[in-house]
Amino acid sequence: MNKSKLNVAVIGLGTVGSGVIKLLRKQKNNIKKRTGIELKVVAVSAKNIRKQRSVDISPFRWIASPLTIAKDPDVDVIVELIGDMDNTARKIIIEAINNGKHVVTANKSLLAKEGSVFEELAKEKGVFLRYEAAVAGGIPIIKVLQDSLIVNKISKLYGVINGTCNFILTKMESEEREYQDVFSEAKQLGYVESDPRLDIGGIDSAHKLALLSCLAFGTSLNFKAVKTEGIDHLSIEDIQEADLIGYKIKLLAIAEYSRNMLKQEVSPKLIRKSSPIAQVNGSTNIIAIEGEEIGTTVFSGPGAGMGPTASSVVSDLVAIASRKTKSTFLNGDKKNDSKSDDSVSKKSSFYLRFILKDKPGVIARLSGKLGSFGISINQMKQKPHPKQKATLIMTTHKTLRTNLNKALTDIMKLKICEQRPVCIEIQEV
Amino acid sequence: MNKSKLNVAVIGLGTVGSGVIKLLRKQKNNIKKRTGIELKVVAVSAKNIRKQRSVDISPFRWIASPLTIAKDPDVDVIVELIGDMDNTARKIIIEAINNGKHVVTANKSLLAKEGSVFEELAKEKGVFLRYEAAVAGGIPIIKVLQDSLIVNKISKLYGVINGTCNFILTKMESEEREYQDVFSEAKQLGYVESDPRLDIGGIDSAHKLALLSCLAFGTSLNFKAVKTEGIDHLSIEDIQEADLIGYKIKLLAIAEYSRNMLKQEVSPKLIRKSSPIAQVNGSTNIIAIEGEEIGTTVFSGPGAGMGPTASSVVSDLVAIASRKTKSTFLNGDKKNDSKSDDSVSKKSSFYLRFILKDKPGVIARLSGKLGSFGISINQMKQKPHPKQKATLIMTTHKTLRTNLNKALTDIMKLKICEQRPVCIEIQEV
Repeated sequence: MNKSKLNVAVIGLGTVGSGVIKLLRKQKNNIKKRTGIELKVVAVSAKNIRKQRSVDISPFRWIASPLTIAKDPDVDVIVELIGDMDNTARKIIIEAINNGKHVVTANKSLLAKEGSVFEELAKEKGVFLRYEAAVAGGIPIIKVLQDSLIVNKISKLYGVINGTCNFILTKMESEEREYQDVFSEAKQLGYVESDPRLDIGGIDSAHKLALLSCLAFGTSLNFKAVKTEGIDHLSIEDIQEADLIGYKIKLLAIAEYSRNMLKQEVSPKLIRKSSPIAQVNGSTNIIAIEGEEIGTTVFSGPGAGMGPTASSVVSDLVAIASRKTKSTFLNGDKKNDSKSDDSVSKKSSFYLRFILKDKPGVIARLSGKLGSFGISINQMKQKPHPKQKATLIMTTHKTLRTNLNKALTDIMKLKICEQRPVCIEIQEV
Repeated sequence: MNKSKLNVAVIGLGTVGSGVIKLLRKQKNNIKKRTGIELKVVAVSAKNIRKQRSVDISPFRWIASPLTIAKDPDVDVIVELIGDMDNTARKIIIEAINNGKHVVTANKSLLAKEGSVFEELAKEKGVFLRYEAAVAGGIPIIKVLQDSLIVNKISKLYGVINGTCNFILTKMESEEREYQDVFSEAKQLGYVESDPRLDIGGIDSAHKLALLSCLAFGTSLNFKAVKTEGIDHLSIEDIQEADLIGYKIKLLAIAEYSRNMLKQEVSPKLIRKSSPIAQVNGSTNIIAIEGEEIGTTVFSGPGAGMGPTASSVVSDLVAIASRKTKSTFLNGDKKNDSKSDDSVSKKSSFYLRFILKDKPGVIARLSGKLGSFGISINQMKQKPHPKQKATLIMTTHKTLRTNLNKALTDIMKLKICEQRPVCIEIQEV
């Protein structure tokens, strides 16, 4: 690739694809001056040639079938931005690599599942696979981790990496509105993926966490091992009660590596208000890295949007043009015993909210069950709930999650609860 | 440099130098595996061979004169960590580059003054000059800016980049102590440079800001143009009064580029408590970048310390080993009319503290002067001050700094002030 021009094909011309074309046009001279290489868009592909777009695509060859582009001898790099709706993106990437083309993609769900396959193939074919835009929009976290891994032993990585959930939680709090209400608004605004479970079920965060984990720890990609819980069972009441005791509720993605064990988890957590993580509002993303040498470094910025995401795609193209890319480590070789679950040994405090039948003796029976599993209550309060029910809010002293789960199962069997209790770990980060 | 080994000489064996040697030993296999290159320390130099050190230097050649190392044919890279006490560091760097050696340095004060000279020479001799450790310890801000510049048009960069000042301001606030008292403690703890003006006078921040500015905007290095003010005139009273109206006081470094004008300033500012900048405590550093495409991204982490700084030095060595280094842009070619001063046109609100002679009519005369320059008061309060004096605290509505300066000069001439008034801009970031 010792030539002075790199021919780029952009597949998928939505917000990000159009943004990439615009940015490449805008920064053309700058990129040429700094790298000595011209990044030239030569071909594009999307579902519909006639769709109204914010960018003029007439200067480029239109190729209806993206798989044809992936074989095109005139193309050096494929930018894949069509998402994960069917099997097409997968085929494009494999076909492109097999034909000796570099690939830039923002397809986090596909990467989380098949990244190691792509990487293996890219290595075999001697091409680059890059995906800075797949995680945390404009924050150059992939590059930071790739550079860091060589020098630092990272022990923990955590943050808020789904803008939609954080938008919903922030808005619930600031406007004192219920989950379902704010969720509907987010959907109308186009902030929610076509399959909402990806966002509010924590799956999108899990995709991203799986990618970040292997880059941070040098372990192999293991999306299936991410323990995932969403936010749709949370109520404004939980947010307000957390606030009273000094916490915010965030959908936290957290990965820890120690003694050959990788723990990956996405779930709502109570985070102390003074933590930088708690202070991230709206669709902003934040990621903290704890390393043996570097201490804790924190990166925050817009999690999505045309500008930040297109900027990350173009920075990948520039890295390829400069041949300044590192191996991506999706096939890390460090041991990774993901069957392990540290909830067996790690004690935490928990926030609990029960909706109880308002009958004499229910609290005695409930707290008796907790006591029988050695779970002791730190704070408790009862509030009236409509229709002869009672809301019981409590926080526990430190206890094992496994014990708490057993106690909650037993409490459900008492038939004193109107619904499954809400249980959120209090995370000290 | 197509060889599999890079011979490193470390000059200066203080905390950071020793840390670099330890880290290179610890990560030796990892670096070799990831880059294919062995980074091998072959020679060291420092003032005193006999000094007790946390690292065993007996495996390395001891060379008493650092200038001899800079010419040593067996050395590929010089790591210069001796600081800026006399002209030695400058001589070492120039000698090393002239002898075809790469240079890694953490010497921010020297770089801020002579970086362009070094870079020009490095370019001529075809070697790399890197300095990730010179700014913000473990935060990889240099690399982020080098990567960003090609893709993003950055308009503003700001942050807290001197850990000592932030340590003092944070401690004054949390322990309600006076400046002089906390400064003495910081000095005893070894947190203050041997010339304290570097820290508390804002000069260290100015060195770092000058380096960051040219990387962010592609302008040429211009340390002398940084408008610099320190923190030693601040009182616990200022911090408490700022708190009452919702602000914290931080020593802010800020650079803005627009219409071919670069504005660089280091000075205490009132920052709204909700801003991420206000929430950085102790010796932590934080840097925010506002770019046209990426929006605002924020990076924070330890500003100094053996681990973070050594980690940045080693990441530079790895970049050199992998030849993955970019030009550093200390000789940026963008226009940079640094004579300009936007205080001529930009309006801000200000916090003011006067200590006045407690005589009838002083407030009328003072506020009359402000009024005659069109400066209107937003909030004001008077408090008693020991020995028949009065403290007058106020915030102004938006006004031109130049007008305020003129008014303050005139107010001083009234001879009603016991000392120069404290004047701090309220910065909305």
